[in-house]
Amino acid sequence: MKATLLINCPDQSGIISSVTSLVHKEGGNITYLDQHVDMQAGVFFMRLETDFNGRDNFNRDEFESRVASELAHPYNMAWNIHWTGSKPRMALFVSKYNHCLYDLLSRYHAGELAVELPFILSNHPDLQTIADQFSVPFFHVPVQKGKKEKAEEEQLRLLKEHKVDFIVLARYMQIVSPRLIDEYPHRIINIHHSFLPAFAGAKPYHAAFERGVKIIGATSHYVTEELDAGPIIAQDVIPVTHAHTVSDFITKGRDLEKLVLSRAVQLHVARKTMVYNNKTVIFS
Amino acid sequence: MKATLLINCPDQSGIISSVTSLVHKEGGNITYLDQHVDMQAGVFFMRLETDFNGRDNFNRDEFESRVASELAHPYNMAWNIHWTGSKPRMALFVSKYNHCLYDLLSRYHAGELAVELPFILSNHPDLQTIADQFSVPFFHVPVQKGKKEKAEEEQLRLLKEHKVDFIVLARYMQIVSPRLIDEYPHRIINIHHSFLPAFAGAKPYHAAFERGVKIIGATSHYVTEELDAGPIIAQDVIPVTHAHTVSDFITKGRDLEKLVLSRAVQLHVARKTMVYNNKTVIFS
Amino acid sequence: MKATLLINCPDQSGIISSVTSLVHKEGGNITYLDQHVDMQAGVFFMRLETDFNGRDNFNRDEFESRVASELAHPYNMAWNIHWTGSKPRMALFVSKYNHCLYDLLSRYHAGELAVELPFILSNHPDLQTIADQFSVPFFHVPVQKGKKEKAEEEQLRLLKEHKVDFIVLARYMQIVSPRLIDEYPHRIINIHHSFLPAFAGAKPYHAAFERGVKIIGATSHYVTEELDAGPIIAQDVIPVTHAHTVSDFITKGRDLEKLVLSRAVQLHVARKTMVYNNKTVIFS
Amino acid sequence: MKATLLINCPDQSGIISSVTSLVHKEGGNITYLDQHVDMQAGVFFMRLETDFNGRDNFNRDEFESRVASELAHPYNMAWNIHWTGSKPRMALFVSKYNHCLYDLLSRYHAGELAVELPFILSNHPDLQTIADQFSVPFFHVPVQKGKKEKAEEEQLRLLKEHKVDFIVLARYMQIVSPRLIDEYPHRIINIHHSFLPAFAGAKPYHAAFERGVKIIGATSHYVTEELDAGPIIAQDVIPVTHAHTVSDFITKGRDLEKLVLSRAVQLHVARKTMVYNNKTVIFS
Repeated sequence: MKATLLINCPDQSGIISSVTSLVHKEGGNITYLDQHVDMQAGVFFMRLETDFNGRDNFNRDEFESRVASELAHPYNMAWNIHWTGSKPRMALFVSKYNHCLYDLLSRYHAGELAVELPFILSNHPDLQTIADQFSVPFFHVPVQKGKKEKAEEEQLRLLKEHKVDFIVLARYMQIVSPRLIDEYPHRIINIHHSFLPAFAGAKPYHAAFERGVKIIGATSHYVTEELDAGPIIAQDVIPVTHAHTVSDFITKGRDLEKLVLSRAVQLHVARKTMVYNNKTVIFS
Repeated sequence: MKATLLINCPDQSGIISSVTSLVHKEGGNITYLDQHVDMQAGVFFMRLETDFNGRDNFNRDEFESRVASELAHPYNMAWNIHWTGSKPRMALFVSKYNHCLYDLLSRYHAGELAVELPFILSNHPDLQTIADQFSVPFFHVPVQKGKKEKAEEEQLRLLKEHKVDFIVLARYMQIVSPRLIDEYPHRIINIHHSFLPAFAGAKPYHAAFERGVKIIGATSHYVTEELDAGPIIAQDVIPVTHAHTVSDFITKGRDLEKLVLSRAVQLHVARKTMVYNNKTVIFS
Repeated sequence: MKATLLINCPDQSGIISSVTSLVHKEGGNITYLDQHVDMQAGVFFMRLETDFNGRDNFNRDEFESRVASELAHPYNMAWNIHWTGSKPRMALFVSKYNHCLYDLLSRYHAGELAVELPFILSNHPDLQTIADQFSVPFFHVPVQKGKKEKAEEEQLRLLKEHKVDFIVLARYMQIVSPRLIDEYPHRIINIHHSFLPAFAGAKPYHAAFERGVKIIGATSHYVTEELDAGPIIAQDVIPVTHAHTVSDFITKGRDLEKLVLSRAVQLHVARKTMVYNNKTVIFS
Repeated sequence: MKATLLINCPDQSGIISSVTSLVHKEGGNITYLDQHVDMQAGVFFMRLETDFNGRDNFNRDEFESRVASELAHPYNMAWNIHWTGSKPRMALFVSKYNHCLYDLLSRYHAGELAVELPFILSNHPDLQTIADQFSVPFFHVPVQKGKKEKAEEEQLRLLKEHKVDFIVLARYMQIVSPRLIDEYPHRIINIHHSFLPAFAGAKPYHAAFERGVKIIGATSHYVTEELDAGPIIAQDVIPVTHAHTVSDFITKGRDLEKLVLSRAVQLHVARKTMVYNNKTVIFS
């Protein structure tokens, strides 16, 4: 039995020693430890992987309750533990662009993504055929003007029914409702096709072209109420020149969007992300 | 005798053929040709290098006058010709940061920069010692509150006296006056320590840290009246993580600023830049 | 009617002028021109795009015969002309790895690749399901020890029958026979999972790990008789650290292989590659 | 009083807990901890920064002796402790190229490099003027054919006399003698102008050009007896094209060499490198 422990708490002396001692006493072998102190905010973050396979009669609940009483309580920790074997359940929201969908489905199919994929949801019917190609259920939930709430209800119903843990907006061209964001805090991952905070909002490739930049980018972030302003998970860039048109930007950008979104999803799935003060800590 | 010819004009059929035919008839061997058409604006750009060494009795003025009458006039061209041997005269403006200054002076001293360097100018006396190290004249022109005009006068006087062709702001921490910009249109090169248009203005590294970006950048551009909004010449980026402090950003950024500024200066000196619609065409 | 003209010939004065004048006289508007001179070898290369839509009664054959007689003959040119509308026919060779196959099929399906795709061929049956997913014919041509020639015959038969123009080895784990290479000179594209010439041959990720490199790469090249030594079309790299295992290299490498191979295929399809002296000229 | 503790030992359960508990008991606040397990070799590596400023009457020797008896002995550790304030003493070896020298001297002068710089040594007199510019002692130790031992003696004498801790070969164009390597194991840093292991040995840019690569690199490594085969500390690359000549490679490479060498020196000075099995662990 292996576990990944994620912690954050007010910074103070002795935390690492206390945590590692408890794990050691409980028979866990620490195979990975990474920590970070946000000096400005005075917050300590830690990610620890441990293996209890060497120990007989290991009791998961007992361990968790000792973490709660001996670590979390005295140090005032926010914490999370993930036991190997539990795959998070991911829903994909798409619209009409297919490149990120193809990329994620190929990775899922090739065994690169350790998730369950209960469904793909779209406000358009166009990508149904791709869902069919990969035998993943597809729900068409149109978002009609003035009737956004109805779509939202349907989305929430499907998410609950399928026990979805997190949502990936793979070029979903609708603004996600605050209710959904509240239900999935820091668990909705978006890909924005610019190097944020430059060119937030609509038509970033056009804006980048207009400005004459020499590099374009893509940004994956957790969705918060403020548009394109959530905690950044991953970013990447590629060079462009005066010779590239807006349409070249779009073509080149597609590859970037795929890479950056899949990187962010992988980090989230591997529980390597923590959010604090609208920023992420990304463990290695 | 070698020449570099730079042209822009309304796009139309036959330009390349006319230009290359004239050069060929005059005995020039074309060693490089690059062109670009801005389809949106309908503008044609060309950079051509030619070598007249094979030809006897070549007359530079005659050639220029044929270009004017047979090409520039009928095609309504803006054009420029640079003959090998003429080094542009560059003035360096600095304040207190020394990394870009050291970088440019080292390159100049090592023969990497084909310029004359009549002087370094600063609003602070601090970097005089470095100018002395490299035996370059240093002028201290303080910019006092309310007396900015006096400094401007002195700057212009020095620039004229030393026949300066272009100015490099190597982390000069003052806003350059509109009069100076008018005198040196697209001939003042600045380095801004962010990936523009993100984080224009003051303290970009602090702003980047606050936003939690995963990549920081630097941008070199021609100075125009609007702050940090001139035509971009060169940009580059480096990855950062949550573990980096503002001070780490500043340290890492220094290397980026040096690289990007020197790249922009090299492009300008090699006459590989053209400006149109507040954007640059950068020839290869 | 648009055309792309590719030329190489011994370098000499007047080529550009002659070519562009002929195109102009024939009523073509030159929309793109890039040239390169290999000074060492004394060879001139040119790629030119031209548009004859403005001209009435344009005759394609007549134009080609004038190119032959007025340009190719006097200048001793090797040349090629591609008229818009003609899509090259690509065969995909695969074995068991699916990531490059998925990537190319997704791009093909999304309309990013301007090719016909008559078939996928493999020495293993495993990837048949993916071919089915995308409705592309799949041929299983096993390569048995001692009976390589039989497989080769079958491959050549299929290639001819389907009028294949070029072959992409999308992680095909067999050495291609000299006969095939002779039939498709500089028209077989391979992806090697290292930064060539480092780590040619088998198990490059293992070798890279053993050496402790800080960057790994992928290289796409035209196949020649010497293993992994053909003209390089595209390369790219990503950073790695001591913390990455061989298996991490393989995972990270997959994304790189996909990107680099698809970039090379795109360049080939857009007729932006020329080969000379076992090196490529890659037009922009 | 702050300390950086570096450890490696056979991997086993309980190390992190033991180390952090001892530091905590001694009143140290752990401000940074990074660890790595080489699963193949079964070796544990750790780097820990701790601050004893909160504690009264802290005794450095006492702490070190407890580390020795309570950690190093039972766990069979190789270990090192560095107390803040002690700057390592660096000697620079150069020949005729000045770019890396200028870069390191500028950084040293700007306070970016936390070292003492007792001298620059060269087998040629050419760079004396640059040493003078920066007021650093310069020793000219020519290496004459057949009399290499004499130069070696002189080098060793100077290194001992000036209590040099580590040597940086800033494009020193001589093979360093085994005696010197023995005296400075993993404390001689070289910059090789290729992406090792590709193009080891002489004239790597020429070899890269010959091969037609699309990316060139630079590698900084610790010097071992086998040429260009020591543990790699840092690598970086830049794209090149068919249009670049060998001389362009050399120019572009200069910037890369400066960056990669200075990065490696910074890592060494910050005690962020450990060597094992001819590979490095580079702490973040």
